[in-house]
Amino acid sequence: MTIVELVAVGNELLLGDVLDTNTNWLCKRITGLGGRVGRTVLVEDDVEAIATEIRGALARGADVVFTTGGLGPTADDMTLAAVAQALDAPLEPSEEALAFVLDKYAELVDKGYVECAELSQERRKMAFLPRGAQPLYNPVGTAPGVVLNVGGTTIISLPGVPEELKGIFATSLQPVLKELLGESIFIEKMVIVHCGDESTLAPIVSKVAKDNPGVYVKSMAKPFHPEKRMPITLSLTGSDQGEVEAAIDKALGELGRALTDGGLSSISIT
Amino acid sequence: MTIVELVAVGNELLLGDVLDTNTNWLCKRITGLGGRVGRTVLVEDDVEAIATEIRGALARGADVVFTTGGLGPTADDMTLAAVAQALDAPLEPSEEALAFVLDKYAELVDKGYVECAELSQERRKMAFLPRGAQPLYNPVGTAPGVVLNVGGTTIISLPGVPEELKGIFATSLQPVLKELLGESIFIEKMVIVHCGDESTLAPIVSKVAKDNPGVYVKSMAKPFHPEKRMPITLSLTGSDQGEVEAAIDKALGELGRALTDGGLSSISIT
Repeated sequence: MTIVELVAVGNELLLGDVLDTNTNWLCKRITGLGGRVGRTVLVEDDVEAIATEIRGALARGADVVFTTGGLGPTADDMTLAAVAQALDAPLEPSEEALAFVLDKYAELVDKGYVECAELSQERRKMAFLPRGAQPLYNPVGTAPGVVLNVGGTTIISLPGVPEELKGIFATSLQPVLKELLGESIFIEKMVIVHCGDESTLAPIVSKVAKDNPGVYVKSMAKPFHPEKRMPITLSLTGSDQGEVEAAIDKALGELGRALTDGGLSSISIT
Repeated sequence: MTIVELVAVGNELLLGDVLDTNTNWLCKRITGLGGRVGRTVLVEDDVEAIATEIRGALARGADVVFTTGGLGPTADDMTLAAVAQALDAPLEPSEEALAFVLDKYAELVDKGYVECAELSQERRKMAFLPRGAQPLYNPVGTAPGVVLNVGGTTIISLPGVPEELKGIFATSLQPVLKELLGESIFIEKMVIVHCGDESTLAPIVSKVAKDNPGVYVKSMAKPFHPEKRMPITLSLTGSDQGEVEAAIDKALGELGRALTDGGLSSISIT
């Protein structure tokens, strides 16, 4: 399975000014495509702090490292400098990225969003990539995404503005993801059980998990409530649709029987 | 300044099933109380993975490490085992924590949420703390929070259910936080500038930041939009209210003049 790590960059996240929704959005997509996110981190706008996280992910043998944020024109956008530092590679102007940035500002001038299309130092900065990297077309903003293969790891840098991140993910990143994640299958089912107490369900969840190795079985703790509803999720990633479905069905069946044996019932399965 | 690191625990976060709002909630509160969150991480339900992050935070010299999640009764709640492993300390039953858990289930039986008050193995598990730790009263759920001083670092473990985390934070954790964070002051101002292009603002933001060391000045990138509004935040933490206010006022004044000199205007300051 493809192991993925995420590095979200930005002081505004650590100050609590901005809720980082990019990490969750990417986790959901990567899981859905059959990858496994092993770890995510939020770090400050600091070249060495970001580079340390990238080096750590490489050392742990991650197949893919996503960075989010820090690709823009301001002085505190320093993710690409950090990727370069982590790999001991220089930052170099990319002709393709420069052409993209130039086109983008010309388009923004046409639309009346920006006064002039000239490539100032700040704008030019977005087209300086670590040696060996390729830009990814950004259908929303001015900063291209960046993809770079190093050893067995692919580093993918996306902007922090969610609309831009999603735009690149849905377009120019698709062929890259297809190659990295292949044709994996992920299936998840949720069973809502009529039970208010996670400690009562714990032995049942543990038994089903033990008897179905590979299937991830988890009860989702909630505050105690008179309605007594506890969700249990079962999920599995694999390469064969039929095998994944069969394994999930087997675990679902065993969960149902174990609940009945424990005097409990399920309200719904979705 | 008190340096804080956060470790959020839970496969459901990495699968993308649950958006981790605890990290942002804590970042906001800690910043507001004058602390500085240096780094946050999400890790899997795995004792060694969690322990590695705690050891890392200790090695980096964090003053406070918060963990969120993994305190409940199920087999995949393993945060306290990981804290113990990171510190090479045993897990021991805490009489105070056992009394709390027992009381809590008795109360839940009285309310009709739970069938029996008996301390099963799963329930008892929540009262096994790393040696030297103290339980923190949980006004919402059954798992006590945990506080532990080790060397110069305080490790605070809170449940992952947001209502429980917030409940402990607002009650039993308050005296601990007061001691750790002291009487620091944090002030933040936001200036909305009539400008649609972050690259145009970049030199102004850089100059104000350079001329006001300590004050954190940041433009908040947004997708291009006909309304042309770009927020710039200025913030500072310090021990003296008057000094912090004066420094922020000076930076605000200089930002206003730099905007005017650049032919730009602010729409609002809050």
